[in-house]
Amino acid sequence: MAYSEEKLLEEKVFKDPVHRYVHVRDRVIWDLIGTKEFQRLRRIKQLGTTYLTFHGAEHSRFNHSLGVYEIVRRIVDDVFEGRSGWSHDERLLSLCAALLHDLGHGPFSHSFEKVFQLDHEYFTQAIILGDTEVNAVLRKVGDDFPKKVAEVIAKTYQNKLVISLISSQIDADRMDYLQRDAYFTGVSYGHFDMERILRVMRPREDQVVIKKSGMHAVEDYIMSRYQMYWQVYFHPVTRSAEVILTKILHRAKALHEEFYSFKSYPIHFYSMFEDEVTLEDYLKLDESVILYYFQMWQEEDDPILRDLCRRFMNRNLFKYAEFEPAKEYKKLGELANLFQKAGMDPDYYLVVDSSSDLPYDFYRPGEEEERLPIQLLMKNGDIRELSRESEIVDAISGKRRTDHKLYYPLDLICDDSSKKNIKKQIRKLLDIEE
Amino acid sequence: MAYSEEKLLEEKVFKDPVHRYVHVRDRVIWDLIGTKEFQRLRRIKQLGTTYLTFHGAEHSRFNHSLGVYEIVRRIVDDVFEGRSGWSHDERLLSLCAALLHDLGHGPFSHSFEKVFQLDHEYFTQAIILGDTEVNAVLRKVGDDFPKKVAEVIAKTYQNKLVISLISSQIDADRMDYLQRDAYFTGVSYGHFDMERILRVMRPREDQVVIKKSGMHAVEDYIMSRYQMYWQVYFHPVTRSAEVILTKILHRAKALHEEFYSFKSYPIHFYSMFEDEVTLEDYLKLDESVILYYFQMWQEEDDPILRDLCRRFMNRNLFKYAEFEPAKEYKKLGELANLFQKAGMDPDYYLVVDSSSDLPYDFYRPGEEEERLPIQLLMKNGDIRELSRESEIVDAISGKRRTDHKLYYPLDLICDDSSKKNIKKQIRKLLDIEE
Amino acid sequence: MAYSEEKLLEEKVFKDPVHRYVHVRDRVIWDLIGTKEFQRLRRIKQLGTTYLTFHGAEHSRFNHSLGVYEIVRRIVDDVFEGRSGWSHDERLLSLCAALLHDLGHGPFSHSFEKVFQLDHEYFTQAIILGDTEVNAVLRKVGDDFPKKVAEVIAKTYQNKLVISLISSQIDADRMDYLQRDAYFTGVSYGHFDMERILRVMRPREDQVVIKKSGMHAVEDYIMSRYQMYWQVYFHPVTRSAEVILTKILHRAKALHEEFYSFKSYPIHFYSMFEDEVTLEDYLKLDESVILYYFQMWQEEDDPILRDLCRRFMNRNLFKYAEFEPAKEYKKLGELANLFQKAGMDPDYYLVVDSSSDLPYDFYRPGEEEERLPIQLLMKNGDIRELSRESEIVDAISGKRRTDHKLYYPLDLICDDSSKKNIKKQIRKLLDIEE
Amino acid sequence: MAYSEEKLLEEKVFKDPVHRYVHVRDRVIWDLIGTKEFQRLRRIKQLGTTYLTFHGAEHSRFNHSLGVYEIVRRIVDDVFEGRSGWSHDERLLSLCAALLHDLGHGPFSHSFEKVFQLDHEYFTQAIILGDTEVNAVLRKVGDDFPKKVAEVIAKTYQNKLVISLISSQIDADRMDYLQRDAYFTGVSYGHFDMERILRVMRPREDQVVIKKSGMHAVEDYIMSRYQMYWQVYFHPVTRSAEVILTKILHRAKALHEEFYSFKSYPIHFYSMFEDEVTLEDYLKLDESVILYYFQMWQEEDDPILRDLCRRFMNRNLFKYAEFEPAKEYKKLGELANLFQKAGMDPDYYLVVDSSSDLPYDFYRPGEEEERLPIQLLMKNGDIRELSRESEIVDAISGKRRTDHKLYYPLDLICDDSSKKNIKKQIRKLLDIEE
Repeated sequence: MAYSEEKLLEEKVFKDPVHRYVHVRDRVIWDLIGTKEFQRLRRIKQLGTTYLTFHGAEHSRFNHSLGVYEIVRRIVDDVFEGRSGWSHDERLLSLCAALLHDLGHGPFSHSFEKVFQLDHEYFTQAIILGDTEVNAVLRKVGDDFPKKVAEVIAKTYQNKLVISLISSQIDADRMDYLQRDAYFTGVSYGHFDMERILRVMRPREDQVVIKKSGMHAVEDYIMSRYQMYWQVYFHPVTRSAEVILTKILHRAKALHEEFYSFKSYPIHFYSMFEDEVTLEDYLKLDESVILYYFQMWQEEDDPILRDLCRRFMNRNLFKYAEFEPAKEYKKLGELANLFQKAGMDPDYYLVVDSSSDLPYDFYRPGEEEERLPIQLLMKNGDIRELSRESEIVDAISGKRRTDHKLYYPLDLICDDSSKKNIKKQIRKLLDIEE
Repeated sequence: MAYSEEKLLEEKVFKDPVHRYVHVRDRVIWDLIGTKEFQRLRRIKQLGTTYLTFHGAEHSRFNHSLGVYEIVRRIVDDVFEGRSGWSHDERLLSLCAALLHDLGHGPFSHSFEKVFQLDHEYFTQAIILGDTEVNAVLRKVGDDFPKKVAEVIAKTYQNKLVISLISSQIDADRMDYLQRDAYFTGVSYGHFDMERILRVMRPREDQVVIKKSGMHAVEDYIMSRYQMYWQVYFHPVTRSAEVILTKILHRAKALHEEFYSFKSYPIHFYSMFEDEVTLEDYLKLDESVILYYFQMWQEEDDPILRDLCRRFMNRNLFKYAEFEPAKEYKKLGELANLFQKAGMDPDYYLVVDSSSDLPYDFYRPGEEEERLPIQLLMKNGDIRELSRESEIVDAISGKRRTDHKLYYPLDLICDDSSKKNIKKQIRKLLDIEE
Repeated sequence: MAYSEEKLLEEKVFKDPVHRYVHVRDRVIWDLIGTKEFQRLRRIKQLGTTYLTFHGAEHSRFNHSLGVYEIVRRIVDDVFEGRSGWSHDERLLSLCAALLHDLGHGPFSHSFEKVFQLDHEYFTQAIILGDTEVNAVLRKVGDDFPKKVAEVIAKTYQNKLVISLISSQIDADRMDYLQRDAYFTGVSYGHFDMERILRVMRPREDQVVIKKSGMHAVEDYIMSRYQMYWQVYFHPVTRSAEVILTKILHRAKALHEEFYSFKSYPIHFYSMFEDEVTLEDYLKLDESVILYYFQMWQEEDDPILRDLCRRFMNRNLFKYAEFEPAKEYKKLGELANLFQKAGMDPDYYLVVDSSSDLPYDFYRPGEEEERLPIQLLMKNGDIRELSRESEIVDAISGKRRTDHKLYYPLDLICDDSSKKNIKKQIRKLLDIEE
Repeated sequence: MAYSEEKLLEEKVFKDPVHRYVHVRDRVIWDLIGTKEFQRLRRIKQLGTTYLTFHGAEHSRFNHSLGVYEIVRRIVDDVFEGRSGWSHDERLLSLCAALLHDLGHGPFSHSFEKVFQLDHEYFTQAIILGDTEVNAVLRKVGDDFPKKVAEVIAKTYQNKLVISLISSQIDADRMDYLQRDAYFTGVSYGHFDMERILRVMRPREDQVVIKKSGMHAVEDYIMSRYQMYWQVYFHPVTRSAEVILTKILHRAKALHEEFYSFKSYPIHFYSMFEDEVTLEDYLKLDESVILYYFQMWQEEDDPILRDLCRRFMNRNLFKYAEFEPAKEYKKLGELANLFQKAGMDPDYYLVVDSSSDLPYDFYRPGEEEERLPIQLLMKNGDIRELSRESEIVDAISGKRRTDHKLYYPLDLICDDSSKKNIKKQIRKLLDIEE
């Protein structure tokens, strides 16, 4: 029997708190899950620093990847199979792409990518196409199979319908993470009737469409997403931890560039500092490695690196104030000056952080991040873009919301053992009550 | 105002997926949560290697500790407060002991304690009484307060009622972990009506008792516990990971004793290898540190250490067979011989592991691990031990159940590239189908 | 001890699927629940004919009334008690008004009120103030206590804060029914974080306000409400059952006016037919009485009454088509003509039904149904109306959505045993596929 | 196409709070649901008088019947289809029998059957085989199809495997009602991992068997059942309502036999009083009819009937005391005497009620109510009865638990306006505190 068609003697199930069970019957999927590159995702948290705000959010990308796979499996096996517009030949490809779509994520991706100019999508491709266990499994399906999987994830595959399963405004990726992150954080947002949405999905040439009768379930999903963004993903305490993490990385890189002599030299960081990260180096990174260094660096001589690492490890985070860049840039300048005078390097201790989200967007061709809009399948067979049918979605569609905050170390600012007067000025500017 | 009475200006809440919210109003509690020793619990998983079986079980002891605190808080504030038999003076002590009861746990406690003869209860005491941030907070309440907290956890405190809140057969510890572990693994066991149990708890001189009207909820709790033990805690796949972990530690220690030269020397392990672990050393240990070394050791020269670490990191675990020690010790001897001949050191590759549990026990004074039985408060004021009232509990009471399994590396045994005939004999003995 | 202060020896709890437990400690509340007027609410469904669409929706107004009481109890006891702006003296009044706010509802209120010009609010007042067991209990609290309870429910009480607990756009009434109706129907809408909302409610002179920090939970609540209206409350199948029910009542009244001789004379209906319903008559009505008559009337001689009753009892409902009154009134006229010719009285068999809702409204003084807007309490103490802070709410605020449908008996129209050609014309006009 | 194979153009779904959705694709099932005999189940509560104890328990047998159908559908379509031992030809038969298994239940079955010697199983057969809409639908499948459905429900069908789907100790009937009744009452018992149990069910010649790997889920199910029986089904308050209901029926019958002249003559009861109930009469009975009479009888002249009806309608129930028949029969005699003297007819006002359950039973051939034991399918293909493998089940297996209670009207006994001394004696005997 062809490897691509091989079934396990007995279906394997993973107990999953979100989908109850994740079902695996294909040997290819089972083998992929067993690769070391996929197992590595167990050591990378799905939500980065969010566990410092919501203590339940300790779940890994391994969890989420299984979930996305399971959702796509249900769509193709329970809904699409046998319908016109869907080719059974795309089944295994869809499952593999779903399972592997986040494979290239590194530890605390967001911060690492920003500081070291890494790109997890690049590494996802590299793992799938490079000399890895994952690649070996995929090649057994066919010589060009790794390339096809990589293309689906890169959104360049010719069959756009397959891409839309994991990359659209209502894809398996989003449906899994909203529910999963809600479950582990314990917030009451993030619930929507996924079972109904799956039942009303239909394959069309270019993308998955949603039968009109399921519109309200989709509205509910979009509102869930909106709430999760502002209540969880952009939570200011999480962003504070993110700010500190980013500053640790910046500081370590700066020290490296100044030929600072680390007590415990971060060999795992070397290639990142030098901007020449190989796939092999990258695969060695996970959150236990990073936390190992952060723990060691709590004893470094450099006071900034030491302080920031202690803050991160012991959750002694920065506080924040609302900040309006357009109006308050002058105040920011003054504050930077005062911080400098008070002995707190403003590059590390006075940080503006911005979050921004589009809850839903209709199609804007040519824009940087083209996002497939949600298309409704009307009773008469017509296709209509969601915001043209739903008042609620229309009301929030295309409206970008942005939030800026200024982060600073309240404890240092209130420590009057030195620079008392300057700190008093700082407190006044920041409206901190005496 | 006395520090012990100080309240936060505004109650702090932690969103908790199990109890919805954890409420903190006492400054002492807030300050304890902020200590670095308590924050360290975020880097130690509640269920050790269980996440390799149930992928959702990635939650930390930090989670659980907050949960136990919250349950005790509800008991003392919502149920006991104002009732005769309960002294408000024990309130803060109870809350602190609940929060800190697991403080001394190290990474993968079970295996580490076994191999290096450590004792997490000793370290809990040491952290509370030693030169730590936790101790500093507790001392602000009163000079003898740390000692009292330590005594409650050590079960030597004179007020047995307080002890029973966190150490009995129906304490806040168990009520939290059953529910929490069920939530994160996603299994459907572990549910019982805690709200009802809390409502029928009453303070008595020696221990918490349960009003008879709540007996059925208690039965349900005991059945939950039974199921969780055999479905989750003693799951053979988890035990397989535990076996490998233990063998890694054994191997590293043996190599150290043989003056093996590690490529990356495990400084964090040094004092454990030498049996002289200080509190300072101990507090540096967490699961990211351990996983860092395991990752590095995947490249060590020693083939056993290297192989075991790769197995653990990539979840390539041992398989298992049922094993009855009394009947099969001879077969075990034969197998050990054959393993040796096949080049697989039986000390590391052929392991018997046993699990054993008492679902509920009435009181057996003088036995090693005295466990307070559950006492019912009858309508007429009498106290009766649970198993004398409940048929179901009586049926399972005092019946120890034990399970033995034999673990081995199926992949090596099936790899016929060498020692083909010996391996064939092994497979035959182990009943492995060709 | 004053009756108003009397507590039960032991708190009584009702197991409630929505709030887990409903707690009763006040003797007044316990006695009110025991009255026959309150027990009557067990025989009136919360959602009228909705059970014919969502089979789980068989819950009664008794359920809901306990739930509203429990929410108000939590607000006043757990959140308001001890805060400035709240007087403990209003506690019992608030609890009683919450419990009794729906007391005057009759069977299938909506249809009965429309056909017989009854008003459940009038009867709520009448029961509270009349010669009833409820009144007797309330009078034991104080001579003017019944009047005060009635005033709160009638929204004329001088303390507007008390009124707002059960009559505003985020009152205990709505919070209970959204969750309860979602629970019993099984839909996945209707969830919001009520615990959070309760925690951020604050008493102000005129009404309950919500701390700004809880705004997102309120947004979620408003979206829940919106979804519940369109997914559940206005479901076209429910409305179809409602249409038939209304027509049954119309027919029975018309027959009475024509001196039709009923086989089983509906004594319970007499005073309604004659527009002279006394309190005593009214209290005898419940849904078992109504269904008793509908069952009997399945055997009446009048073909319309008989047919409609059979339809209702056996759920053989009307089908529906979208309908736009402004554009299609001419078509409606034609259809009415054809129905007449085909022997189907259009007064009973061709019905336009409209549903309309405002998901949220800011204050419009002087309008017919003034609804208190939701006010946010800002950090600086200011009060701001919700839609001025929340983009999402602003987007849907004040936008009335209306939906019209045309109901007709598809089975009769497709029955070609008579009037074949006329029915063919009808089917064509209604776009019914042959 | 044969009617038995006919599929709906579009699958119909019922939103179900327990199973999320009930799926219907077969026209036969759809048509059966639409019959008036099946719709009648909407007017019969699943749990009779339980709603007077657990106010959420207002759900109907209609609900439950759909649920049993859905579980059987999942077993045969998702688990059995294609497996050896299962014939696709039995599919539709199994679905119909599941849907219709409770069709013959009348209002408050338990009491009615006892008083009037009715048997709901007889009426289920009668409806399926008689001149009904249900029969007409079934006959369209085949002339002998109604008979086959009736046989499955009567447990006389030759294929015992089909019978075991709805009549064994782990059948779809029990699995639905445990979960459903737990959901609607809101109790925390009644949960077990049904999805797992379904996945491990296997068809065998004589009955469904359960793979050994699912044993713990089955243990959990049996414990759920045990808890539901004692916490919900046998709740003493429910039994009190049942006692009153039974006594109302007894009284009405007695009055009829004495030629008492009812103010409102109960025509619906006539044939029951005369022990000659026809199918036509029977189908007219539902709970609204019964409650209609009870409401009317609140105004009857007979003081016993009037009082009992008022008690039932207004939930003014009897109180209860523990009672041991073997020891206390003498006391019962004394009490009866005193009741007589005090003017309270002991036939109606002093009632012993017993409940009794076997949580699980192994097979006892020849006994009155043979219940199929649960059989486990071992890894090696052997079949073993559950209690031989499970310690927990063994512990409770075959142990009948019985509970006796004595019910009486506390209010009358405490009303000292007459027969003061006798009542004092009664109170003393009943241990009622003064």
